[in-house]
Amino acid sequence: MIAPPASATSAVRRRIMSGSRPTGRQHIGHLFGALSQWAAYSQSADETFFEVADYHALTTGFENTAAFASNITEMVLDWLAVGIDPARSALYLQSDLPEISELHLLLSMIVPVAWLQRVPTYKDQIAALGGEIATYGFLGYPLMQLVDIVIVGGTTVPVGKDQLSHLEFGREVVRRFNNLYGNVLVEPQATLSEFPDIPGLDGRKMSKSLHNAIDIADDPETTTKKVRSMVTDPQKIRRNDPGRPEICPVFKLQTAVNAARVPAIEAECRSGELGCVACKGELAERLNLTLQPIRDRRASFDPATVPAILASGAARAREIATPTLAEAKRAMHLAPAIARPVGL
Amino acid sequence: MIAPPASATSAVRRRIMSGSRPTGRQHIGHLFGALSQWAAYSQSADETFFEVADYHALTTGFENTAAFASNITEMVLDWLAVGIDPARSALYLQSDLPEISELHLLLSMIVPVAWLQRVPTYKDQIAALGGEIATYGFLGYPLMQLVDIVIVGGTTVPVGKDQLSHLEFGREVVRRFNNLYGNVLVEPQATLSEFPDIPGLDGRKMSKSLHNAIDIADDPETTTKKVRSMVTDPQKIRRNDPGRPEICPVFKLQTAVNAARVPAIEAECRSGELGCVACKGELAERLNLTLQPIRDRRASFDPATVPAILASGAARAREIATPTLAEAKRAMHLAPAIARPVGL
Repeated sequence: MIAPPASATSAVRRRIMSGSRPTGRQHIGHLFGALSQWAAYSQSADETFFEVADYHALTTGFENTAAFASNITEMVLDWLAVGIDPARSALYLQSDLPEISELHLLLSMIVPVAWLQRVPTYKDQIAALGGEIATYGFLGYPLMQLVDIVIVGGTTVPVGKDQLSHLEFGREVVRRFNNLYGNVLVEPQATLSEFPDIPGLDGRKMSKSLHNAIDIADDPETTTKKVRSMVTDPQKIRRNDPGRPEICPVFKLQTAVNAARVPAIEAECRSGELGCVACKGELAERLNLTLQPIRDRRASFDPATVPAILASGAARAREIATPTLAEAKRAMHLAPAIARPVGL
Repeated sequence: MIAPPASATSAVRRRIMSGSRPTGRQHIGHLFGALSQWAAYSQSADETFFEVADYHALTTGFENTAAFASNITEMVLDWLAVGIDPARSALYLQSDLPEISELHLLLSMIVPVAWLQRVPTYKDQIAALGGEIATYGFLGYPLMQLVDIVIVGGTTVPVGKDQLSHLEFGREVVRRFNNLYGNVLVEPQATLSEFPDIPGLDGRKMSKSLHNAIDIADDPETTTKKVRSMVTDPQKIRRNDPGRPEICPVFKLQTAVNAARVPAIEAECRSGELGCVACKGELAERLNLTLQPIRDRRASFDPATVPAILASGAARAREIATPTLAEAKRAMHLAPAIARPVGL
């Protein structure tokens, strides 16, 4: 199912690596953020590796793992639905690559604890999520992210601004390894993405845990109903009151799915000509138009095929991960990795 | 090469697990400490698993790995020489068990950083070895020790007093895992060993890094020469001066290899009847008598067979490690471990 490696152009071909925790059905924040970009990469000349990061999900959710299997299936179906093509991209489960655990352990030996404690998100997240999260695994997760990338030789990582510090940390680890043991690991480059900030129904950032999300797989009626429930400018009480689009989540979503109409909507909202009910009706219609082909594609995939897609992706990823680990061990003068088959 | 599991008695049979960093040729401090005990366990009715802990060696020696391969061979030859029987005991390389890395990563998710920072040896070692050692891997090494034990279902761990806190930490991790996910991991028991404190040539603790060691594999002449160079009571300058056996390293070694003569030696030293030269001569003779059968056995092993011994041991260890990891992943609701062969 996986495309063969490029021949003549492989020296300059980028290898894009990204991943996501299996949180179940993805919402339109994921779609207009990462996923539409991943789909474009999947269709491009770049090599693409997309990881279902189940070990990362443990860093903040080790107590609630019962839904992991269904969350993985639902997320992968959304990936397929948005146009990530398993014939062109490797889609795989992080825990199916034992090489990740091994290289993580090896690299842990050369990473000062202080480097990890300095990663800006570490103390932020502990403050946000509480001290219970302050596990050894959670402390190490920027290192695990780096291993996810280097184990498949990723050259290019699409990141938002908030993740740049993680990649900088990772690049420092790669340089340290290569200085100590020789030039083995590929130092990945960031490609900075301006992800649109998608608001949820309540105006806060769209998030499954805030229960303010519109899922990619929601049916048209649910989508319309959710759009109707969205908050708007609280000063626009009657239809003809002038509105402030710049603070309205509905307007923000219009910019994502109804770009051609945005200047007119902005003017009509400010003048009071356009009421919120009509504006929401138009948004719901546009959103349903945008989502319908994705829903149709989603319905065309049998969930029972997801394990085979992930197994095929893992086999493809391990074609790179196995020799990468072997080379790292060789460089460190460790015994050769014990022989294991590639794939299942 | 490995003994089959016991049949009728297996329910009550202990599974002893221990290991050692590959530091090269072992000295008589190792012999009179752990190794003679391991050899006795190897010959007993207990199941025995002895690990060459190469990943542990990285925690304090990641910058100097060039000698790992020869250090492993020399250490295993010493293990064989003292009577650890590879037909009865599994001798294996830690890095040959990828299950250790994987279970280590999984358990890292439930271990608070504070538990690791509280292990008494952590701050002691950083103070002793310098801040350069304060890596993420070094912080995690008591967890890795625990994984070494539980991955092979070890029931019983011979430890000195200084290692008891590590095992207590490990037992707490096992209880936390079993509380969270079900009763999967075996909680190991300590069996406290009173290891004799073997002094080096200079009276400090015998240690390879202090260059004050008598190696198990030293030839008789080297052994005798080293014994002659040992420090004794500095107040016993002339032969007939009265000595203080309680502060004399030579006397301490006499207690290890010349027990029957110890009361007489003590009296003759105190009275001045026995001079240091004669005392050292007697010690060297006894030591050579003790070591000669070990040296002979060592010479009977072809170093080229060590890799096969370790591979066979790894295969035996993975017969337990593979299902243990699979069961841990199942309990955590993770995807089944990707299929891998047992052994090479």
